[in-house]
Amino acid sequence: MSKPNAVIGQSGGPTSVINQSLVGVVQAVQQSSHIGKLLGARHGVRGIVNGDFIELNGASQDLLERVAQTPAAALGSTRDKPDAAYCEKIFESFKKNDVRFFFYIGGNDSADTARIVQELAAANKYDLQVFHIPKTIDNDLRVHDHTPGFGSAAKFVASAIMGDDYDNKSLPGIKIDVIMGRHAGFLTAASVLGRKYENDGPHLVYVPEAPVTEEKFLADVDAVYKRLGRCLVAVSEGLSVPEKDKKGHWVTWAEKLAANIERDSHGNLNLAGTGLGDHLANLITTKLTPAGGKKLRVRSDTFGYLQRSFPGLAVSSVDAAEGRMVGKTAVEYSKDEAKREGSIAMQRAQGKYEITTIFTSIKNVARETKDLAPEYISKDGNDITKAFVDYAMPIVGSLPVVGSLSELKK
Amino acid sequence: MSKPNAVIGQSGGPTSVINQSLVGVVQAVQQSSHIGKLLGARHGVRGIVNGDFIELNGASQDLLERVAQTPAAALGSTRDKPDAAYCEKIFESFKKNDVRFFFYIGGNDSADTARIVQELAAANKYDLQVFHIPKTIDNDLRVHDHTPGFGSAAKFVASAIMGDDYDNKSLPGIKIDVIMGRHAGFLTAASVLGRKYENDGPHLVYVPEAPVTEEKFLADVDAVYKRLGRCLVAVSEGLSVPEKDKKGHWVTWAEKLAANIERDSHGNLNLAGTGLGDHLANLITTKLTPAGGKKLRVRSDTFGYLQRSFPGLAVSSVDAAEGRMVGKTAVEYSKDEAKREGSIAMQRAQGKYEITTIFTSIKNVARETKDLAPEYISKDGNDITKAFVDYAMPIVGSLPVVGSLSELKK
Repeated sequence: MSKPNAVIGQSGGPTSVINQSLVGVVQAVQQSSHIGKLLGARHGVRGIVNGDFIELNGASQDLLERVAQTPAAALGSTRDKPDAAYCEKIFESFKKNDVRFFFYIGGNDSADTARIVQELAAANKYDLQVFHIPKTIDNDLRVHDHTPGFGSAAKFVASAIMGDDYDNKSLPGIKIDVIMGRHAGFLTAASVLGRKYENDGPHLVYVPEAPVTEEKFLADVDAVYKRLGRCLVAVSEGLSVPEKDKKGHWVTWAEKLAANIERDSHGNLNLAGTGLGDHLANLITTKLTPAGGKKLRVRSDTFGYLQRSFPGLAVSSVDAAEGRMVGKTAVEYSKDEAKREGSIAMQRAQGKYEITTIFTSIKNVARETKDLAPEYISKDGNDITKAFVDYAMPIVGSLPVVGSLSELKK
Repeated sequence: MSKPNAVIGQSGGPTSVINQSLVGVVQAVQQSSHIGKLLGARHGVRGIVNGDFIELNGASQDLLERVAQTPAAALGSTRDKPDAAYCEKIFESFKKNDVRFFFYIGGNDSADTARIVQELAAANKYDLQVFHIPKTIDNDLRVHDHTPGFGSAAKFVASAIMGDDYDNKSLPGIKIDVIMGRHAGFLTAASVLGRKYENDGPHLVYVPEAPVTEEKFLADVDAVYKRLGRCLVAVSEGLSVPEKDKKGHWVTWAEKLAANIERDSHGNLNLAGTGLGDHLANLITTKLTPAGGKKLRVRSDTFGYLQRSFPGLAVSSVDAAEGRMVGKTAVEYSKDEAKREGSIAMQRAQGKYEITTIFTSIKNVARETKDLAPEYISKDGNDITKAFVDYAMPIVGSLPVVGSLSELKK
């Protein structure tokens, strides 16, 4: 009898190390004996349903190592969120191809898809083991200490802010940098990791978990600018106001703006993206008057997709190694028939940075997400604490080496 | 008699390697015997006029090496463009401080300031030698084969586009990336340097030197999208229309948009920046209808300041070394009393990448700038030629290693 097959897929927004996990799975399967064909599904669940597979068993180590270093999903990704009928089709495809192992790399929604398919299989007495391999730059999976993809995105953000802060020291003004993360502020919080000298930026940090009014925002910027003659602001695209929607979530500035702009019948702004930065810059220009009536120099940048896909040596080597590791671990776990479904979750030792993994039911991970813990946000709501730096820095690994001539004055 | 002093300043938009040139000057002065104090002017000409100097002779090698790796102007920069009276004040400051050597790191405007001060000195029979040390990510200085700062910005752009292209392969759609360069298209042209596989992006490249109409732009995007099901567009912030202004320059899309928007009494868009990307994305969404009536997925990113200030290992090591070298060379040249004023210009050997420098009068460099040569732009005006790749790749040095599973099909 031939050995049963496995499917691997990638899902959701790409990261810089999602291919590390893919390669971890491929290499572990190449070295194991319980799996037959390893079928890579093109564009996630869509490829499974359409039978669009690519056989990965024979991939050379040279190719795999290059793919591992390449950002974004090498198999292609998807935004499809399967309903019951879609899950049924996935299950049919698995039966047809004698697939008994399903490795799915993705965020919390992807995890839930995998879980539902496993339930279908169980109900039909079809032997299927399902493994959720975590990835998300948002770092918002429950149970997981952190997720592969976050470390590299955080390193990109911290590095970008460092560079931009030196730029701002060089030509002083007010600068707004808009960072990814609609609901969770982990990535925006990473903006503080590169601070080294007194008065280094970012001087103000706003995460979705700490809502801020227009008045408070302007007063904060004004105070920093009066003190330093410049101000670097890191703001999450999910910047929120102290007002809750029907679901109990903070309403975002982007949502408020969208409502206003719809009333103005002017709909060509991408408000969650560049529009927010432009809006904040405009707000400062029109509402703040500096001492002496000098015109304020205000600029904004929205870091955009580069945060999740910038390749090369800017990637966190810790993150890359962990991405690989969780892929390999998933294949290890799959040798144990008792493991029917679960997510490979990294856990951190007390007191030092040592990572182990646990296998936790997908139910503990799917649907609901995790917020930035309150102890990571300063009391004023406009800065990030040392506790967060201690949490995040080992995941980022290292940051660019810099120096300032201010050291000469010492 | 004590030795005469020197002033060094930095000017204009920061780059990733402008401090390499600063450190090159400091190290060469530390090793030479013809210069007394080396005074670093804080924020360029402004520091000279205000007597805001920092003495650099005693800086440690550890600090200098860290400063060299730090983006943006360590001394501070300025946008001041001195008039005759301002130049007179600079000259007065030089006399007061017995400054006989002026090293000025900057673009073409900065070069001209230095030249005017030297003329003033000559007219007053004051012994002053003036050295322009090039820097600009725009790469638009005449006589110079290329300028320090360009290689690193080009590497950032090429890397960012590589990552974004894999992102776009992963989740197909139409993506617009707006790249710095209001007049010269060198940096936007660098977007093609990372292409490796068939159908790799960017699929369309628009530089200021090759104007394009709205109709042509839309037709180009439509054709690529119909062929590949996705389209990555690299566009210069100085994107132009085939229409000339009074000075004979191409009118930019941003200028046209600004005029329209002013009429709409809606002025809160940064049109040269994020506004252009949003506008192009909106144009595609509203004017292109894909086959089957499926909604187009269109996004835009504006790379912004990161292009000139992203630190760390993303910097071109060739660019960094050349930035250091032109600084050191300026100090070498200053030993020759016959060298009254000039710019340190890199020249390339025929047939291989070997750089030497010449000393050329600032008049040959200042004011007018250089465009992307016509042979670097494809006949259709929407792509970049191999001749440009051959020109730029040695300056960029290396790009991230990548791999695609498409190799498995071979």
